[in-house]
Amino acid sequence: MEKHVYFFEEGNKEMKNLLGNKGAQLAEMSRIGIPVPPGFVITTKTCVEYFKKKGLDDEVVKEIKNAIKKLEEKTGKRFGDAENPLLVSVRSGAPISMPGMMDTILNLGLTDEVVEGLAKINEWFAYDTYRRFIQMFGNIVMGIPDKKFEDIIEEIKKEEEVKLDQEISVNGIKKIVEKFKEIVEVPPPEKQLFMAVEAVFNSWNNERAINYRRINNLPEDIGTGVVIQTMVFGNLGNDSCTGIVFTRNPANGEKMLYGEFLINAQGEDIVAGKRTPMPIEKLKEYMLDVYEELERTAKRIEEHYKDVQDIEFTVERKKLYILQTRTAKRSARAAVKIAVDMVNEGIISREEAIMRVDASSLDQLLHKQVDENAELRVIATGLPASPGAAVGKVIFDPDEAAVRGENENIILVREETSPDDIHGVAKSKGILTLKGGMTSHAAVVSRGMGIPCVAGCEELKIDEKNEVLIAGDIKIHKDEYITIDGTTGKVIIGKAPLIEAKFSDELKTLLKWADEIRGMKVMANADTPQDARKAIEFGAEGIGLGRTEHMFLKPDRLPLVRKMILADSREERMDALEKLEEMQKQDFIELFEIMDGKHVTIRLLDPPLHEFLPNYEELFEKKCRGEMSADEEKIFERVKKLRENNPMLGHRGIRLAVTYPEIYEMQAVAIIKAAIEVKKRGKNPVPCIEFPMVSEINELKTVKEKIEKRIKEILEEEKVDINYTMGAMIELPRACFIADEIAREVEFISFGTNDLTQATFGYSRDDAEGKFLRYYVDKKILLTDPFQVLDRKGVGELMKIAIKKAKKANERVDIAICGEHGGEENSIKYCHTIGVDITSCSPYRIPIARLAAAQATIDEQ
Amino acid sequence: MEKHVYFFEEGNKEMKNLLGNKGAQLAEMSRIGIPVPPGFVITTKTCVEYFKKKGLDDEVVKEIKNAIKKLEEKTGKRFGDAENPLLVSVRSGAPISMPGMMDTILNLGLTDEVVEGLAKINEWFAYDTYRRFIQMFGNIVMGIPDKKFEDIIEEIKKEEEVKLDQEISVNGIKKIVEKFKEIVEVPPPEKQLFMAVEAVFNSWNNERAINYRRINNLPEDIGTGVVIQTMVFGNLGNDSCTGIVFTRNPANGEKMLYGEFLINAQGEDIVAGKRTPMPIEKLKEYMLDVYEELERTAKRIEEHYKDVQDIEFTVERKKLYILQTRTAKRSARAAVKIAVDMVNEGIISREEAIMRVDASSLDQLLHKQVDENAELRVIATGLPASPGAAVGKVIFDPDEAAVRGENENIILVREETSPDDIHGVAKSKGILTLKGGMTSHAAVVSRGMGIPCVAGCEELKIDEKNEVLIAGDIKIHKDEYITIDGTTGKVIIGKAPLIEAKFSDELKTLLKWADEIRGMKVMANADTPQDARKAIEFGAEGIGLGRTEHMFLKPDRLPLVRKMILADSREERMDALEKLEEMQKQDFIELFEIMDGKHVTIRLLDPPLHEFLPNYEELFEKKCRGEMSADEEKIFERVKKLRENNPMLGHRGIRLAVTYPEIYEMQAVAIIKAAIEVKKRGKNPVPCIEFPMVSEINELKTVKEKIEKRIKEILEEEKVDINYTMGAMIELPRACFIADEIAREVEFISFGTNDLTQATFGYSRDDAEGKFLRYYVDKKILLTDPFQVLDRKGVGELMKIAIKKAKKANERVDIAICGEHGGEENSIKYCHTIGVDITSCSPYRIPIARLAAAQATIDEQ
Repeated sequence: MEKHVYFFEEGNKEMKNLLGNKGAQLAEMSRIGIPVPPGFVITTKTCVEYFKKKGLDDEVVKEIKNAIKKLEEKTGKRFGDAENPLLVSVRSGAPISMPGMMDTILNLGLTDEVVEGLAKINEWFAYDTYRRFIQMFGNIVMGIPDKKFEDIIEEIKKEEEVKLDQEISVNGIKKIVEKFKEIVEVPPPEKQLFMAVEAVFNSWNNERAINYRRINNLPEDIGTGVVIQTMVFGNLGNDSCTGIVFTRNPANGEKMLYGEFLINAQGEDIVAGKRTPMPIEKLKEYMLDVYEELERTAKRIEEHYKDVQDIEFTVERKKLYILQTRTAKRSARAAVKIAVDMVNEGIISREEAIMRVDASSLDQLLHKQVDENAELRVIATGLPASPGAAVGKVIFDPDEAAVRGENENIILVREETSPDDIHGVAKSKGILTLKGGMTSHAAVVSRGMGIPCVAGCEELKIDEKNEVLIAGDIKIHKDEYITIDGTTGKVIIGKAPLIEAKFSDELKTLLKWADEIRGMKVMANADTPQDARKAIEFGAEGIGLGRTEHMFLKPDRLPLVRKMILADSREERMDALEKLEEMQKQDFIELFEIMDGKHVTIRLLDPPLHEFLPNYEELFEKKCRGEMSADEEKIFERVKKLRENNPMLGHRGIRLAVTYPEIYEMQAVAIIKAAIEVKKRGKNPVPCIEFPMVSEINELKTVKEKIEKRIKEILEEEKVDINYTMGAMIELPRACFIADEIAREVEFISFGTNDLTQATFGYSRDDAEGKFLRYYVDKKILLTDPFQVLDRKGVGELMKIAIKKAKKANERVDIAICGEHGGEENSIKYCHTIGVDITSCSPYRIPIARLAAAQATIDEQ
Repeated sequence: MEKHVYFFEEGNKEMKNLLGNKGAQLAEMSRIGIPVPPGFVITTKTCVEYFKKKGLDDEVVKEIKNAIKKLEEKTGKRFGDAENPLLVSVRSGAPISMPGMMDTILNLGLTDEVVEGLAKINEWFAYDTYRRFIQMFGNIVMGIPDKKFEDIIEEIKKEEEVKLDQEISVNGIKKIVEKFKEIVEVPPPEKQLFMAVEAVFNSWNNERAINYRRINNLPEDIGTGVVIQTMVFGNLGNDSCTGIVFTRNPANGEKMLYGEFLINAQGEDIVAGKRTPMPIEKLKEYMLDVYEELERTAKRIEEHYKDVQDIEFTVERKKLYILQTRTAKRSARAAVKIAVDMVNEGIISREEAIMRVDASSLDQLLHKQVDENAELRVIATGLPASPGAAVGKVIFDPDEAAVRGENENIILVREETSPDDIHGVAKSKGILTLKGGMTSHAAVVSRGMGIPCVAGCEELKIDEKNEVLIAGDIKIHKDEYITIDGTTGKVIIGKAPLIEAKFSDELKTLLKWADEIRGMKVMANADTPQDARKAIEFGAEGIGLGRTEHMFLKPDRLPLVRKMILADSREERMDALEKLEEMQKQDFIELFEIMDGKHVTIRLLDPPLHEFLPNYEELFEKKCRGEMSADEEKIFERVKKLRENNPMLGHRGIRLAVTYPEIYEMQAVAIIKAAIEVKKRGKNPVPCIEFPMVSEINELKTVKEKIEKRIKEILEEEKVDINYTMGAMIELPRACFIADEIAREVEFISFGTNDLTQATFGYSRDDAEGKFLRYYVDKKILLTDPFQVLDRKGVGELMKIAIKKAKKANERVDIAICGEHGGEENSIKYCHTIGVDITSCSPYRIPIARLAAAQATIDEQ
């Protein structure tokens, strides 16, 4: 028969999937002798069954009852016993930690009788605990709004004229309890337990948990475990405390005990951020022995797990208990430093170090920083909760931030954030909270998302009604700009100048290791010398996509491009083309020089011609107003003629070259002449000429043949040999099916997954996002935006077909990807598995790609 | 060693691929004792090698020389012998006949000496033949423009004041020969022969032959054979003649000797249409014996070949020679009648009959006819060369017809057509020629293309300079309308009223046989009761695609549809939807009643909403002019908001239903309520509800669930059971890859191959045709327009993937196709092979689909 309940000592850390992460860690700690309050776990499978059967199975109920009995025996305490009561915590614990997303009930087991018994030891503590329990139980299990409880507390505090909860008198607390009991009828302990277990199960499917899983791409169907553990109390007086420590600094990775604690408090006081805790070093001043024991224990736990731990502890009358440990979330910066340090300390291997860092998180290391040399009007300093600097408009409402954050730079400013704000946090450029510490919700979540965050900035105030942020005399209204620096904790009025991020030595080391391991090449999407230099700096092995249309849009080119398009005669067109050729040549010369010896892939003109002409509607308006000159009239007619109903599917890419061969010929000539010039200067240009939008092999053959002929002529004339290659983009479903024919014609093919996604889904990239795609992702019609994370079911299958055909036809053909997906971790890993040789992405994403590619190789092994 | 030359008696009719069709038929006839002038064939393979080696191989030259020697022995005649000269014809003959497309040289072997010898028998004949030879040789082999020769003939005719070539005096002919020899140096006979053979080979790659193969989808790489045959002369006097007979009437299929002949003429006089020949019955009056022999011989040939034959004959001094026979081209009407007759005569099987009719040609049987009851101004009557009536603007220039025929109804009017006019013919609605008979170029080509044609309408004149067609006193200018009736030969001024085609009994019979054989079901694309009735008449087994958006565009609906789209409040929207529901219900009631017991597939709203709103640009213009009211301003803003950059890839189909569920719900409710009402009237409605533009399974699940719930409610309320099904369109590549998931949710899937082609190629249907697609087909970048003929490499592969997945997931799921391709022969056959169960097409294409589906089944067997 299947077992639904495991005592801690029956499990170990490998049983995460069954016991949840929290449960498995408690089991593991028990196993290795860490002081853990005794308890047991209801398995995640029970949760899944609970949803299927829409209730708890009789068998499960029986097992839980037995476990309680055993726990009573073990602790010598009894549920509902006034003299020696068993109190337990009931916590969620999923296989993958989802901090703060699901529910927890503490002090379960309290009743009127029990509290009276407890009161004999410490009356204030007893009733305070009871009121906490009723509040939590009422709110979480019975769904009564927390405000109802808080209002009562505030009322009593007013009556007693005190500020803090701790200052309330025993009578005040008792009064609160009485009033709470008018709202909540407290059931007997066993009933409490089962109600709490169901509440925890149900919290798996609350909105914020679902949201969290969606954002973090976590599976939906694995369920949560429930950890039931004997309560210990950090709020028994000043010889008790509770706290959270990290075995290393989770913000910067420094090797030191890092964390915070609160004297005479329970754990949720820290997490909720209602009281600002003290740094952990301060514990030495209160209880040196305990501090040292904590330090030793923490070290032991890290050594055991071989990774940084996030440890929750409670000291009950000077006795240390470890309540939970888990692999610590950390900033990308810390992750990199810790990974590299641990290799140097001999704890983990290089491969392990590479796998320890979330590739996509590197993005935040490349975030800008505030230029400290500039004159800054710092109005406050809070906790540096998530590194990086951000400039944006002050917004107080997370809903508003969620909407406006799509298009504007927003700094979300909150008293404190809660899991309900997560949608607003996700779309903001930076987070500023007035309350809460480094482990508060805002801090944890924004670190996870790589969003700069300054937390616990208590100097500031919010005037909610008038939507003003107040710093002493300074008032910052909604929509005014501020800058926050999540690395230093500074809050700056206005738009501070930001400077580019620099690579840390640890990151350089890690990426060097990654480079040694990875199979895929990493190149850059770069159109300008600046991009190209940045690409080299970030470790690109060449240019995988150089878009010539961006060159066409430069102010000195555009008039010539228009002249070419509007030309009445071939002579006129050729004249414009000749001038453009010279300009393009200069573009390419620069790129070849910077990329000396590396591939420079140049995609010939891609968009439809009308994109280079004046805006149709502006012209049309002029015409309607009768303000159009004869010259403009001519342009207008041409623009009108070139307009398309669906330009994305229109006359563009190689189709343009089939009908107007001279444009590609000009570009190819410019490329080769540039290469010749660079070669004459003693450098080594490696041009790769790329044809976009191929859907039929004859397009490629026709255009390629003409261009090859021209190139041959030039090379013979100049008597130089240039080692050039040709390639085709695969960005249409049909191209995937003729990839064998294509591969026979070229040296490389490159997936343009933006367009391929567009065609495969039939989603217009220009329109879909605002019209329905955001809605789709919000409503989980789609789990991720396919323009951000490569779709495996459709686009991925097409790529597999194409790669198989291409490699079969020409095993030496290089396969690349150069869409947005080329810099996205998940997509890169998939591409590795299906046989893509090269990924190309924007320069800032190159470190991500280098690391993700290495991880893909290790995954494969 | 490979043999390049075959004497007729060495071959048979199975050797088409090697000897060409003409050669194989001559061989076959020789074999069965038909009087064929002796000769031999150079194989098609020799032609292919000729192109590869860019010349004739020595071995081939030797074989040809040997064959000539043998022919000399056989006939007792000799090349260049003045007394008894061997004259031969040199003709092209490809494995698949390409009438008039390649070159032929007659009377080869004539020289100054030979002609003098011949002149002893008949001086006029001798020199006339010589001048014909020089003209042909000069024109075809040496490339001298024919006009040079014709000018000389005209000059002499003027001098002698005669009208016809036959009226020129012997001296006149001799003068012509002298002048011709100033242009052409006549080589000795053997050199003539080799030059002619090379010319024929080269004519395989002349532009019109390439064009013809492209239009008829014939392979490029099979080459032509060359038939070298002893000349016989139909121009030896009034006891000689030449002609062409069909064993049955190729226009209407009647069983009778049908054809025409010219006394004292050579074959090309008929084909060229320069002299209007006499009907074959007239031959009785000239030479009864010969007529009877011809009749017997023709019958024997038909019996041998078991198909209607197109026989070229010559009578040389009362001796009948058969020069060639081939399977006769025939009108669709004739093809159907002949096929059915031959089954009834016991000559062929039903399957053979089905295979004998080109399915796509049935289209022409459904062409409109002139309403004979109307008052018609008939201005002339010509030969009824290709059946069907057409109304259009008179255009004289085939180039102009080719261009304007894209968008306008054109009647191409020509003295006579030549193979060079083929592009203009193809794009015209009808053809009218003043010269030439039923077997003239215009007649043959237009019958083949199913274009109505009136030929040889000698009463009419063309004033080329002023572009006027003259019928007595009546002048019809270019661009004025005429009507031609290719079934009766009438030419009518203005736009005559046309009536719909009716099925012949033979066609009904043939289609009945087809229905018994075919595996695929045939349904109709029909949105209106008229369409539905037509569909039933043409044999549809249901409606495979009913587009509800067409219903939305009706004038009484559009204001409501707009109200729905522009609604400010839910109430307002629901009000409009309720009214629309009632209207849609009425639409469906009619369809269900007409289709009683048959499937009625209703596709829920597909296009983006802005298609139902006023034109943006008109509104914009109004706005620019400052003429916009406040109400219009509101509409304008909404239209602007709804506009999309790429509406084809935009917010449409099921995507609309995900975001605005009430529209589909309204439609589904209307469908079910209509079905209930029809069922209550005692009929049997079979509604199939179809969701367009699915690309992700969650779209389908979400929308389907809501609709199913509503339907269940209604059915429970009404206590009626409706046998409805649900299906999804597959019109996006991604849908193909999730076809398994889709198939688990639905009872049927239907390929929307128009959209699927669009997405697979990345071609905008709205734009591609004019911008580049026509160019692509013209330049053979693409062999066919993929919107017309289903692309097998891309779209077809996607369909295969989808069908495999769908059937594996749900073997009972029905697979349909409902794009334009559903009525296209080639595409239907492909669909059959990949497992499509149902094809749906416009009502007029249903007969084609029925026949093509049967052919597909037979092909498979």
